[in-house]
Amino acid sequence: MNTSEFRRRGKEMVDYVANYMEGIEGRQVYPDVEPGYLRPLIPDSAPQEPDTFEDIVNDIEKIIMPGVTHWHSPYFFAYFPTASSYPAMLADMLCGAIGCIGFSWAASPACTELETVMMDWLGKMLELPKAFLTEKAGEGGGVIQGSASEATLVALLAARTKAIHRLQAASPELTQAAIMEKLVAYSSDQAHSSVERAGLIGGVKLKAIPSDGNFAMRASALQEALERDRAAGLIPFFVVATLGTTTCCSFDNLLEVGPICNKEDMWLHVDAAYAGSAFICPEFRHLLNGVEFADSFNFNPHKWLLVNFDCSAMWVKKRSDLTGAFKLDPTYLKHSHQDSGLITDYRHWQIPLGRRFRSLKMWFVFRMYGVKGLQAYIRKHVQLSHEFESLVLQDPRFEICAEVTLGLVCFRLKGSNKVNEALLQRINSAKKIHLVPCHLRDKFVLRFAICSRTVESAHVQRAWEHIKELAADVLRAERE
Amino acid sequence: MNTSEFRRRGKEMVDYVANYMEGIEGRQVYPDVEPGYLRPLIPDSAPQEPDTFEDIVNDIEKIIMPGVTHWHSPYFFAYFPTASSYPAMLADMLCGAIGCIGFSWAASPACTELETVMMDWLGKMLELPKAFLTEKAGEGGGVIQGSASEATLVALLAARTKAIHRLQAASPELTQAAIMEKLVAYSSDQAHSSVERAGLIGGVKLKAIPSDGNFAMRASALQEALERDRAAGLIPFFVVATLGTTTCCSFDNLLEVGPICNKEDMWLHVDAAYAGSAFICPEFRHLLNGVEFADSFNFNPHKWLLVNFDCSAMWVKKRSDLTGAFKLDPTYLKHSHQDSGLITDYRHWQIPLGRRFRSLKMWFVFRMYGVKGLQAYIRKHVQLSHEFESLVLQDPRFEICAEVTLGLVCFRLKGSNKVNEALLQRINSAKKIHLVPCHLRDKFVLRFAICSRTVESAHVQRAWEHIKELAADVLRAERE
Repeated sequence: MNTSEFRRRGKEMVDYVANYMEGIEGRQVYPDVEPGYLRPLIPDSAPQEPDTFEDIVNDIEKIIMPGVTHWHSPYFFAYFPTASSYPAMLADMLCGAIGCIGFSWAASPACTELETVMMDWLGKMLELPKAFLTEKAGEGGGVIQGSASEATLVALLAARTKAIHRLQAASPELTQAAIMEKLVAYSSDQAHSSVERAGLIGGVKLKAIPSDGNFAMRASALQEALERDRAAGLIPFFVVATLGTTTCCSFDNLLEVGPICNKEDMWLHVDAAYAGSAFICPEFRHLLNGVEFADSFNFNPHKWLLVNFDCSAMWVKKRSDLTGAFKLDPTYLKHSHQDSGLITDYRHWQIPLGRRFRSLKMWFVFRMYGVKGLQAYIRKHVQLSHEFESLVLQDPRFEICAEVTLGLVCFRLKGSNKVNEALLQRINSAKKIHLVPCHLRDKFVLRFAICSRTVESAHVQRAWEHIKELAADVLRAERE
Repeated sequence: MNTSEFRRRGKEMVDYVANYMEGIEGRQVYPDVEPGYLRPLIPDSAPQEPDTFEDIVNDIEKIIMPGVTHWHSPYFFAYFPTASSYPAMLADMLCGAIGCIGFSWAASPACTELETVMMDWLGKMLELPKAFLTEKAGEGGGVIQGSASEATLVALLAARTKAIHRLQAASPELTQAAIMEKLVAYSSDQAHSSVERAGLIGGVKLKAIPSDGNFAMRASALQEALERDRAAGLIPFFVVATLGTTTCCSFDNLLEVGPICNKEDMWLHVDAAYAGSAFICPEFRHLLNGVEFADSFNFNPHKWLLVNFDCSAMWVKKRSDLTGAFKLDPTYLKHSHQDSGLITDYRHWQIPLGRRFRSLKMWFVFRMYGVKGLQAYIRKHVQLSHEFESLVLQDPRFEICAEVTLGLVCFRLKGSNKVNEALLQRINSAKKIHLVPCHLRDKFVLRFAICSRTVESAHVQRAWEHIKELAADVLRAERE
């Protein structure tokens, strides 16, 4: 394909994308296909001679779209939102064209420098403590990771390295393995599965702290675990506090947990993957109080801040903690400026070597929405979740299962797990809306997450009417 | 930005991208900026009110482009290529619009299923052993990772889990830490720095095997290390063989190393990050011989197969080895089909949870180029590197430092490292072309990598004339 054909096909694709977004409400949110649907629809192997672009475009509707779960449908209320906005898509086009790999400053200075400044912009929007920003040539700074899972892992690895160095400095006879055997990390029993995974990958114990009645990690339970583990000869080194858990959007008590971590010399990582975006609104900023105790903080603009996946924002108070865990400098990646102190080589901050020019998406989105536009977007979602909450509360057959703080409502039919499983099964079989469940303690619970950029009150109302109808069916079937 | 404005701005962006690609030869390949150039050019914080799209577009040329290293310029000969093609960009636009997160089959069946089939297509192009493919419902299969670094890490972690399970099955009293202390991984001393990093992250020893005169890992050196380490009570468990090293595109001897790994029950991971793309050509396929001994194989279509970053292709012979290392199943990610045996939940194959619909890029590129088009592209690059090699060989002041097999030529002025460092410094200061160096043993060497999709013989000839001129200057300065 030459450039003039790209001009034509690119514009056709822009229209395809625009049509898709405009018509998404009319598409069934969850697909009808069964596992293995796709393979019979396409050839066994790649063609020897080129296909035409028309062939491919026709196949999008024939082969791909029937198997797509439409995350941006206003009837998608599953998981958490994944961001989608036109400015981010435009920036991604530019990112693809520049196509630089930003592993070092020299590999594309603009890629590194825009990222540093955008992370400062975003940090200021959240009113992060200055220690996390780069601007005053401090020790902190921000980096775009691919996902919150990677941010948690990177934090855990940095904490592990730091703990090993500290312990070996005090007792040079200790081997790394002898220390790792005793290291123990903590998170709430409501933390995301990626925290457990980070422990597995890092080869250290991870213990779940029982959360309180509001599904929050509190000082007392953490203290108890620390005392028990220290008495058993273990070495606590790392705590993940979650702001906005995946199950029910609960908040660990950072103001209690933070001081303990500081006092006990444990790395505190704050994971606000979903909720973090809300902290740009003054009325939600208090939820972040206590972040001043953290060593690292992460949230995903690619969830709720209109920056398309992937863009996971991570800050640390001491850059050298990250780079200390990863820094390797082969000749083919050295460049003349790297020891100047002025530059950042982001490859030392992350698991992969390569990285795209993702800060362009932040730059486009922040500028084209403005902070006020982004705040309005968050507020609308929160208002819609409260609207759904009040609908649920008006129906005595249902109960709300956790406090509704942001855009997630956890609810269920009063009654058995079985009846709620049956309700969810009916909802997801009808495919008019899409939800996923969670477990809160022993209760099977339905999660209603406000997700789509284009969701309005009317969609929420229609979703609720639909849920009520299916609930009536389920309850009737149960009585029969 | 509403949909009708996106239609307009999207088309303008298509033209911007097309103009950029068309005019890239006229841009200076390496930027003039100094570290810290960007911050003074943009505001301290995000705007409260939206900026206009015109503001942003104007700033691209004013703020971003002056700091871009133009990886797709035909005068870019640094690192290794990073892929760029119009079909991949079109697919990325579609990927951004669908915007699904493919962590499980249910999260978007098309995203998972197209990936599985595309990995089979690609595996067949390479004539990978059938054990690596999914199609016959075997135990193997392919997955798209973000980078070769992640693929190496994932393989090492899977191998570590497998080794720990095996050793604990034989000696249940052994703790994980006691085993990890003794585990040792190997790669050639020419392997990429990401291998060392995977060892650091995985908390296991990694030892470098001295390569032979052709910079290849051979049986004898590996055997020697194994015997020495076993005698010292260590447990060899993992070997990375590189096909096409980053320094000089040398090839470890897979036919020697592979059988040793199989016999000694060590996981063999084959990293062909750059060179792998060439194996789609029958005349280069022999370089992959011995892959039948491997447990996992990886290369980057995002380097040399016209699929824009990121798209790192990884295959394993036993899917359960990967999923066994990572599998965690919280309620909110469960779905009704997951235990059917027919489906794949790719979140168990990788470090992050989230993933984009990257197989669309493969589908577009493979179909719009056809296998023959892709082969022609590889062959042209290899032919251009041999053209450069023969230019170097015609000049008695220069020497070739490693066998030229694919698209990389390692060369230097006969003489001191100092004179070669001076030559590279002049080249990269002149900024007409861009190269990076490497060390081969104690020699400082210049790497000339054929990178751009649009590079032609004329660019290579001009680059060589330029290098010769600068070399004359350097040699003259040295004599004075």
